[in-house]
Amino acid sequence: MPVLLAPEQAPALHELLAQANTAGLDCQPAVTRTQPDPRIQGLGSLASAGPTEISFLSNTKLHDQLRGCKAAAVIMTPDAYQLLAPGSYAYQVVLCSEPYLMYALLAQWFDQHRVKGLATGIHPTAIVGATAQVAEGVSIGPYCIIEEGVRIGRGTRLGPHCVIGAGSVLGQDCLLHARVTLYHNVAVGDRAILHSGSVFGADGFGFAPDPRKEPGAWAKIAQIGGVLMGDDVEIGANTTIDRGALENTLIGNGVKLDNQIMIGHNCQIGDHTAMAACVGVAGSTVIGRRCTIAGAAMLSGHLVLADDVHVSGGTAITSNISKAGRYTGVYPYAEHIQWQKNAAVLGQLAQLRRRLMAIEKNTQ
Amino acid sequence: MPVLLAPEQAPALHELLAQANTAGLDCQPAVTRTQPDPRIQGLGSLASAGPTEISFLSNTKLHDQLRGCKAAAVIMTPDAYQLLAPGSYAYQVVLCSEPYLMYALLAQWFDQHRVKGLATGIHPTAIVGATAQVAEGVSIGPYCIIEEGVRIGRGTRLGPHCVIGAGSVLGQDCLLHARVTLYHNVAVGDRAILHSGSVFGADGFGFAPDPRKEPGAWAKIAQIGGVLMGDDVEIGANTTIDRGALENTLIGNGVKLDNQIMIGHNCQIGDHTAMAACVGVAGSTVIGRRCTIAGAAMLSGHLVLADDVHVSGGTAITSNISKAGRYTGVYPYAEHIQWQKNAAVLGQLAQLRRRLMAIEKNTQ
Amino acid sequence: MPVLLAPEQAPALHELLAQANTAGLDCQPAVTRTQPDPRIQGLGSLASAGPTEISFLSNTKLHDQLRGCKAAAVIMTPDAYQLLAPGSYAYQVVLCSEPYLMYALLAQWFDQHRVKGLATGIHPTAIVGATAQVAEGVSIGPYCIIEEGVRIGRGTRLGPHCVIGAGSVLGQDCLLHARVTLYHNVAVGDRAILHSGSVFGADGFGFAPDPRKEPGAWAKIAQIGGVLMGDDVEIGANTTIDRGALENTLIGNGVKLDNQIMIGHNCQIGDHTAMAACVGVAGSTVIGRRCTIAGAAMLSGHLVLADDVHVSGGTAITSNISKAGRYTGVYPYAEHIQWQKNAAVLGQLAQLRRRLMAIEKNTQ
Repeated sequence: MPVLLAPEQAPALHELLAQANTAGLDCQPAVTRTQPDPRIQGLGSLASAGPTEISFLSNTKLHDQLRGCKAAAVIMTPDAYQLLAPGSYAYQVVLCSEPYLMYALLAQWFDQHRVKGLATGIHPTAIVGATAQVAEGVSIGPYCIIEEGVRIGRGTRLGPHCVIGAGSVLGQDCLLHARVTLYHNVAVGDRAILHSGSVFGADGFGFAPDPRKEPGAWAKIAQIGGVLMGDDVEIGANTTIDRGALENTLIGNGVKLDNQIMIGHNCQIGDHTAMAACVGVAGSTVIGRRCTIAGAAMLSGHLVLADDVHVSGGTAITSNISKAGRYTGVYPYAEHIQWQKNAAVLGQLAQLRRRLMAIEKNTQ
Repeated sequence: MPVLLAPEQAPALHELLAQANTAGLDCQPAVTRTQPDPRIQGLGSLASAGPTEISFLSNTKLHDQLRGCKAAAVIMTPDAYQLLAPGSYAYQVVLCSEPYLMYALLAQWFDQHRVKGLATGIHPTAIVGATAQVAEGVSIGPYCIIEEGVRIGRGTRLGPHCVIGAGSVLGQDCLLHARVTLYHNVAVGDRAILHSGSVFGADGFGFAPDPRKEPGAWAKIAQIGGVLMGDDVEIGANTTIDRGALENTLIGNGVKLDNQIMIGHNCQIGDHTAMAACVGVAGSTVIGRRCTIAGAAMLSGHLVLADDVHVSGGTAITSNISKAGRYTGVYPYAEHIQWQKNAAVLGQLAQLRRRLMAIEKNTQ
Repeated sequence: MPVLLAPEQAPALHELLAQANTAGLDCQPAVTRTQPDPRIQGLGSLASAGPTEISFLSNTKLHDQLRGCKAAAVIMTPDAYQLLAPGSYAYQVVLCSEPYLMYALLAQWFDQHRVKGLATGIHPTAIVGATAQVAEGVSIGPYCIIEEGVRIGRGTRLGPHCVIGAGSVLGQDCLLHARVTLYHNVAVGDRAILHSGSVFGADGFGFAPDPRKEPGAWAKIAQIGGVLMGDDVEIGANTTIDRGALENTLIGNGVKLDNQIMIGHNCQIGDHTAMAACVGVAGSTVIGRRCTIAGAAMLSGHLVLADDVHVSGGTAITSNISKAGRYTGVYPYAEHIQWQKNAAVLGQLAQLRRRLMAIEKNTQ
């Protein structure tokens, strides 16, 4: 459960709103006459927020949950406010055209109190190469390994057990959680968030048939490219991004990858593209900007996807997509017995079509 | 290959049976008159067990393998025993109505000899926060990090390189293999078994569109919920369970997750539900009790699945399931050329149905 | 981007060719009269290689890229050389019947300069059990754990944070990148390359229903087998290979597994079989030699696949395959609206077939 701030740490509601306005959001109390200005100790859902917490309505389908909400304040759009029955609520209403974005910022701010409490400095058990360049204000957790030639930018923090391979680069204000691994020659931009178990720059999967040995044997193609990542990237737990064979694997600015995603060697992912968990992208595929790839989708290698392509969950993309839009290819599930009956016919589709055409001819 | 106990460590057969009876299994020798009481040094399959090992028949399809079995003793049901030709075997028969369960217990007991040999105590290289509460009898391996405010229950053992984030809790008698990572505010019940590379409490995948930046940009929604896990849970290698956005991700008692599974934020998994490897469950999905999800199945987000739902391997579940039963949705494979012919027709199914309806009209 | 060797380290072209001939490749300059013998500082693609680099043409579709190639030398087949317009190029041509294999070897040689610079010896922070046998010339990185009874062969190198469980064995000349985990009793052959986050010998997923507890509860089947791997194996980042229940999980010689692959307990993978990323193989499945399994394919448990079987990406194999060949079972994707229309008919296929048969009867 989210931790509440102590009352003396908690901002007053008007302070939160001022901060949001400063951050570029347009928000204000629905009622401007003098009224209580509660200290906000935390953030909760409509169903769970208590009288020292702020909540939000970002989805009109949840409007019913406003009834009985015990929060101190609720963020909503002016349209949602119009639908509120007067006297049906005790919380203060905050009007904002982007309640979901405001929720995102509030969550960040409340989480900052925890983040500020984290250890800083370079832990004495961290092993830092003599030629590594570590900027001021960098935090390096226990048992980290920073190899030779690494550069780490100002304000970046590494949790315990991170390994940064020779010659790799981390930008400014990055956050590496425990146990992130960068191989050699991997470059990460500013403000990256890398989660535990993620691996950057492992060898791409490249082998040449090697008839010098026995039939079927493979010769390894050493992967001598690197990985180059832009700014504002977030990468989930146990996700892997392989190094390029000869060039770099490229991850654009603002790319967000969930857990357990695999990005093959030589791929290029465009700015602000987001992928949900368990997606696999085979080598050398180029994905445009602002794409979304839903969970467990799989992209074959050597493809090109345009900007603004949206791939549904569980879909296998096996050819280029040159037009923005949504693409789907998932087999509909059913009760097992029903599925069996229909699946048995799948293998006869070509034949069924031929039979249909024959009848069409005969009955014309 | 399984290691055999030294003869002097090995229990006699009657001792094993007594232990099983004490554990609640009903088992006894098929022949009660005086006969040899061999020491049992290990456990093997019908095909591989040698004359100092015990084996078992849990699947009637394997009855043929009893012929030629060299084990000292074989566990089987009374029904299976009826089918044995007299004089066709040299092993001793142990009758038990649940041979598979008895095998499970025997395997645990033989493995205990290895487990008991593991190092105990807190390794001097482990870094334990001043405010962490570590009960008596806890073992913490080399290079572990136990952050501030952590609580670890009696008898729990951590392999090397585990990281337990601030404020997290481990119950009693848990076993964490090498390199398990808990973020902050993750609670694990008693008797959990957590495998290497598993990550608990990484950030859920939550972003709000952020028009303050450029089109397509995302603002991070800090994930301020936690993870709350029941008792008797086992979690496989490299599996990830994300922390909740506002509330906790919930894992019930007795839940068993295989390797490389992904559980999204805010999910709730009911008691005794088991999932095979490579399953992905998107955020906020609620799964009932005693469900089984076979390998590589994928569940969309915000779904509700009833108790006792069984999902076949490779199936994508994209809508609620309110009725117990088995559900399947996997595309049948075929030789590639055959698949090509049929797949080409798939995109014309709606059209084919229309044509069929037209003929039906004409031929009525 | 690949790092170039310093000019004084770089071999002359004739030296590279001599080395390739020694390694068993047949290659020579296309023009044998006296000409410059440039020092080759690196290896690049046709599009990116500069005037101190060598490139290669392994795919005739890329023949157009030869125009404008700035490399010092280009490897190609005699057939490709025939198609070159005289005077259209400034690079030297190297003729080789296997340009792709020659590229693989060159990449290995250039990468060796980096590998030779890695730290050697046993780092003082590595913890090596008193009964472990570590051969001469073994390198063990910082914070590694080598438990009791481990044996490590000559020339093997371990990156930081590797954990080698009790009684496990590593052959000669293996390379373990950072953060590889072997449980106890795992045996790896010679020349293995194991990538970060891979886990060998975690417990297979085995549970017996346990009516002694509440309905639906499971009893753990302790996994007392091991993992046995042949020579020349490469295993990708975050891949997991589980230990056998009673016997060993077996990985043949020359097997190549990409990232995030899951191999269940008791599986047997034949020599030289290669699997692309995100493949899952359920327990006890036996795969032949020289098979290729493309990305995200899934194999059910207890299957047998013949030698030389090729499974397409995203395909679910749910029954035995006794004949070599290519097998596919992926649902074709389409624009979402188109997919919806066709998917809706999928659930009626059995019914449609019946209706078609009825018409066929009526119109005969």
